[in-house]
Amino acid sequence: MAIEKVYLTYNEIHQLCQEAAPKILNEFKPQLMIAIGGGGYVPARMLRSFLKKSGSPNIPIQAIGLSLYEELPSTTPGTSTPGDVEQLGTKVTRTQWLDLSSLGEMSNLIGKRILIVDEVDDTRTTLEYAVKELEKDVEAARQRLGIEGETTFSIFVLHNKEKEKKGKLPEELLKDDRYLAARTVGDVWICYPWEATDIIEHDAMAAKQSGM
Amino acid sequence: MAIEKVYLTYNEIHQLCQEAAPKILNEFKPQLMIAIGGGGYVPARMLRSFLKKSGSPNIPIQAIGLSLYEELPSTTPGTSTPGDVEQLGTKVTRTQWLDLSSLGEMSNLIGKRILIVDEVDDTRTTLEYAVKELEKDVEAARQRLGIEGETTFSIFVLHNKEKEKKGKLPEELLKDDRYLAARTVGDVWICYPWEATDIIEHDAMAAKQSGM
Repeated sequence: MAIEKVYLTYNEIHQLCQEAAPKILNEFKPQLMIAIGGGGYVPARMLRSFLKKSGSPNIPIQAIGLSLYEELPSTTPGTSTPGDVEQLGTKVTRTQWLDLSSLGEMSNLIGKRILIVDEVDDTRTTLEYAVKELEKDVEAARQRLGIEGETTFSIFVLHNKEKEKKGKLPEELLKDDRYLAARTVGDVWICYPWEATDIIEHDAMAAKQSGM
Repeated sequence: MAIEKVYLTYNEIHQLCQEAAPKILNEFKPQLMIAIGGGGYVPARMLRSFLKKSGSPNIPIQAIGLSLYEELPSTTPGTSTPGDVEQLGTKVTRTQWLDLSSLGEMSNLIGKRILIVDEVDDTRTTLEYAVKELEKDVEAARQRLGIEGETTFSIFVLHNKEKEKKGKLPEELLKDDRYLAARTVGDVWICYPWEATDIIEHDAMAAKQSGM
């Protein structure tokens, strides 16, 4: 059976960000947004408008670039080690990381509230990588500077796919309800508008769906 | 008289990127995109889809963050120095810069073709800053590594405002036709969809305009 395709328009995604904004503002209270590019660029920019409080400056955004390469399954079963990300069939490559030198008083991330933004939580591998690596950076800064203070990460994605996840998020992040998906979907093929070569046809497909 | 407001829908902007893609692909041939955030995030992500050639990987994007603060005019006329950007009433602040360590073989930028993407060319101050600072980085790498090779910058913006520009771009960039604005407009107030708090009303305003 062909995998189901779900089409989203730009306006629908804009409204998903709008809908999520109150919870993010009132509960996550982020001081910095980290957009996982390329997919996180658009929702992060949309969200920034809805998180802006009048009279306050915009919440700063830093973009990081992560690419997920699915590797071939190991041909030698028995050699795989639980917890070894590569052996689980996936590898994350950085194409950009944070620029702490431009972050001013935010620069060490210690004691800050940080919102990570991406388009979709599929296998969770990319999100696991992002949180783990950011936590390492914070820990290194803590050791270097001798500063105390709890850094809290929260996550916003447009869609979470209900499926077995290869990546794990910190338990306390999930327990403290610091994970927000605008929509939870099955293991469908999500067609985001920024991938459309014909946006008119794309929107027509989206309209046909919502009419179902 | 109130300043004229021009409303753009997401789909219109998507199509502006689509329309610009052939020239960018065939003439600029970028090997790296640099998105000036926050405004450049959305067009850069849209453009990436249209620049993708089948069988080739995506063109990498690095985001930089630049904020423009308009400062009060100097209260001591006569002390201003031509060419001093701050004295012209503007100041650019970095909120993120390139992460060369994650760029692999692109990391020194020497001899590369680089496309800078932003939403609007208003006073040109931000673009001047971006090009100048990037050129400085390339020159520093050239001195450090002793490598020859011409780095060429090209620019894509959604809109160029026809007005007196405070910032200057390198003459050869303009002469070689490496500056592309999808649309040239007067000194109007451009309302981008990612700034809209009510996207339905925003689109209605855009529709009313195109009906004029």
